[in-house]
Amino acid sequence: MLSSNSRLWLPRAYHALTAQRKFSSKRPGLGLSETLKSVINTGAPGDNVKVTGWVRSVRMQKRIAFAEVVDGSTLRGIQIIMDDPQMASDLSTGCSVEITGKLATSPGREQSKEIQATHVSVIGKSDPESYPLQKKRHTLEFLREIGYLRPRSQTIGAVTRLRDQAEIGLHKFFHDHDFMRIHTPALTANDCEGGGETFNVVTAGTDHPETGFFGKKVNLTVSGQLHLEVFAGAFKRVYNFNQSFRAEPSQTGRHLSEFWMLEAECAFMNDLPTLVNVEEEMIRSTTQHIADTAGTDLDFFLHKNEDLGKLVQRLTNTEPYARISYTEAIDILQRADAKAKFSFKPQWGQGLQSEHERYLATTHFAGPVFVTDYPADIKSFYMLPNPDGRTVACMDLLVPGPCELLGGSLRDHAYQRLKSKVESLGFEEGSLDWYLDLRKYGSTPHGGFGMGFERYIQMITGLESVRDIIPFPRHAGRCQY
Amino acid sequence: MLSSNSRLWLPRAYHALTAQRKFSSKRPGLGLSETLKSVINTGAPGDNVKVTGWVRSVRMQKRIAFAEVVDGSTLRGIQIIMDDPQMASDLSTGCSVEITGKLATSPGREQSKEIQATHVSVIGKSDPESYPLQKKRHTLEFLREIGYLRPRSQTIGAVTRLRDQAEIGLHKFFHDHDFMRIHTPALTANDCEGGGETFNVVTAGTDHPETGFFGKKVNLTVSGQLHLEVFAGAFKRVYNFNQSFRAEPSQTGRHLSEFWMLEAECAFMNDLPTLVNVEEEMIRSTTQHIADTAGTDLDFFLHKNEDLGKLVQRLTNTEPYARISYTEAIDILQRADAKAKFSFKPQWGQGLQSEHERYLATTHFAGPVFVTDYPADIKSFYMLPNPDGRTVACMDLLVPGPCELLGGSLRDHAYQRLKSKVESLGFEEGSLDWYLDLRKYGSTPHGGFGMGFERYIQMITGLESVRDIIPFPRHAGRCQY
Repeated sequence: MLSSNSRLWLPRAYHALTAQRKFSSKRPGLGLSETLKSVINTGAPGDNVKVTGWVRSVRMQKRIAFAEVVDGSTLRGIQIIMDDPQMASDLSTGCSVEITGKLATSPGREQSKEIQATHVSVIGKSDPESYPLQKKRHTLEFLREIGYLRPRSQTIGAVTRLRDQAEIGLHKFFHDHDFMRIHTPALTANDCEGGGETFNVVTAGTDHPETGFFGKKVNLTVSGQLHLEVFAGAFKRVYNFNQSFRAEPSQTGRHLSEFWMLEAECAFMNDLPTLVNVEEEMIRSTTQHIADTAGTDLDFFLHKNEDLGKLVQRLTNTEPYARISYTEAIDILQRADAKAKFSFKPQWGQGLQSEHERYLATTHFAGPVFVTDYPADIKSFYMLPNPDGRTVACMDLLVPGPCELLGGSLRDHAYQRLKSKVESLGFEEGSLDWYLDLRKYGSTPHGGFGMGFERYIQMITGLESVRDIIPFPRHAGRCQY
Repeated sequence: MLSSNSRLWLPRAYHALTAQRKFSSKRPGLGLSETLKSVINTGAPGDNVKVTGWVRSVRMQKRIAFAEVVDGSTLRGIQIIMDDPQMASDLSTGCSVEITGKLATSPGREQSKEIQATHVSVIGKSDPESYPLQKKRHTLEFLREIGYLRPRSQTIGAVTRLRDQAEIGLHKFFHDHDFMRIHTPALTANDCEGGGETFNVVTAGTDHPETGFFGKKVNLTVSGQLHLEVFAGAFKRVYNFNQSFRAEPSQTGRHLSEFWMLEAECAFMNDLPTLVNVEEEMIRSTTQHIADTAGTDLDFFLHKNEDLGKLVQRLTNTEPYARISYTEAIDILQRADAKAKFSFKPQWGQGLQSEHERYLATTHFAGPVFVTDYPADIKSFYMLPNPDGRTVACMDLLVPGPCELLGGSLRDHAYQRLKSKVESLGFEEGSLDWYLDLRKYGSTPHGGFGMGFERYIQMITGLESVRDIIPFPRHAGRCQY
């Protein structure tokens, strides 16, 4: 550490600061209410407690009443026991409440604690006639229509907590391995991968993007890769975790117009297996982090689905994921064709169709499989050519469920070769000079990848539509709120 | 914890997963190179090491040569000693290298370790004639012109590492206090605060936003507050950390068209002091986290600037930040006017001008000051009216440097009152029904705030322009790459 030296030339006022290192951010006194999770986990039977939350259900009996109160911190909330049914007379599904009472061990199997209420007060009513989120099961499609209330539903609650922990798990993995997070921009003048499916940005007063606010055409990013490569050329290992945008007109549950993407770039990376190691370990450790920290929410999805349980186990155990080359993949598919009867005949030089990817991940390997070294002609210009002259050093990770989960490659780091490619592809003159120049000054062999975050959550939860995985889904014809 | 019960109905395959909890994400074998920071911090004198990085400077003497090699993990990198000057003959500023050698304790004051090189190899050359980033000091303005190389400069390096730790500090604070991170959208149909300064989103084929891809006018978000309120109504305490967008035509170093914003919302919050506690503690603990984890980079900025050292100390010590009401602020300003000679006379009912805010933060309090309870007429419609009928329960935090760092309020949680306000303000009929309906079903007293992340970094580093704080600055007339 250099800081012991560096403190020699510090202004005096700063010395006091560096002396009080052992500051804890969890000091009392902020005045925030306890969450139910914290009451359940740390409270002891007999404790006097005061909790707040929303009523999920009320059950009245002759001499007793029950209410389930939730606050989003746990899947199932806490049961409130009211010895006088009168106490529950103002309660209805959806209302917000403050409950005072004594904590007790629950005799029920699903709750471990309950509260014997001494005082119940309604903070905000909820008209039982019009409240859209009744106790009965709603379809996910119906819940999307009430986007402002669906976070209170059990499924969206579970997916939201799981999503939160997935993100933390990703940050943890990357920081453990000395990656720095870089905030790549949403607004970009670069459009090298988007093709026709990009959004343009204009100001209210301007119809002409070219002459508008920025003096040039500006898009919403489809990938931060090129920007990340800039920072990998200074910080060695970098990643981002941002929204990406696609004006994808498809109306299926597979695509969003705005989705979250994890991208990483590593300088000084000489071979593809190292990049595959990083990707595999990212998925293994993030999935394990979710199991460790959001186990109850994960269980909520797994207990309905034995195949999913096996997949999650497969993702986290230490056995390496399958790795095959594109050429081997074509071979497997061609041999399988007699039985599988693909609509598109697998053929070397053609892209893998969804049916092919699904066969590999779901039927043949029944688990994650990296497919590497695709033909150069069907992949992006920036990928590093292999010595065979026909393929590039790239990979896709295929998994049961969303199929294509992530894609990456080594990047061509040779200035002249990349320049010729850029010229032959007809990019706007000079528009990628900055990207090429990265290869002029201390270029290094490097590689990276991108993973769709919603697809990852889709794989772990088995949810069919990515629209139920993101808080506010945007897609063709739909931008609610 | 509910998970011990919940495991009863788990598929068998999942049992094995839950048994291997103690998985560490830092397992060996990924094949990634060590960072210089790790070599310096954990290596022992005499260790054989292999490092990679970029040459910052080369010094040739008759019988010995020196090179400083950096890789972005530390401010100063490591010194390489070459006993044979021939070894350095291919080295030039900016080239990438791999060095093998023996670690030694450095006699120099600024480095604690150095490497006695046995082998030096250049991986990517850097033409000394054309390399734009020579050793000499460059202005920050010049560095902006070479945005693809400026991350290698010492200042941008320091600010990038500090920014990374600031973000981690924020996440840590919010997770310690049971806030859940919510990914609020960049694309929104909601425009209640943006006025004319919003960007619209169109697809390449469409000139008419209203009839385009989404079937309605869609903007880039100016604030995720309303979306966060949705999730606060289910998860109690939530926050986001996203880009916000403003088509702000100003050409000063104070504004970006795309910037990062931290916003938080808390349900069941009855009074303003609790909200102020959260804000204050967020800044205190995040700043302390930076001092703890990026101390060398913080020192880089503080050692040039004694006032800044005092401010950072003030932000982290336990003494509460100053808190005054708007009415008291006007009083202070009016009494100061004779001496300060403000261009705008301070007057109750008028907004505070920049000169007023600067006087309060820099001259009068010389530190952070919360100004609370502004007149209702100059604040947003959603803020909670105070009992006096004239003011609302809100605050701004003013600080030396960027002045206005953060703004927040309690939100009006009463359906009828808020509905009348929305109607009288002439919002498009029905466009805020979802926001109003949040007050119909289990409404709670709640509040929240937003902080410009670049402004926070600006305060801590003393940098004049926010353009040097974000990796790729976007502003009027400028969208590089």
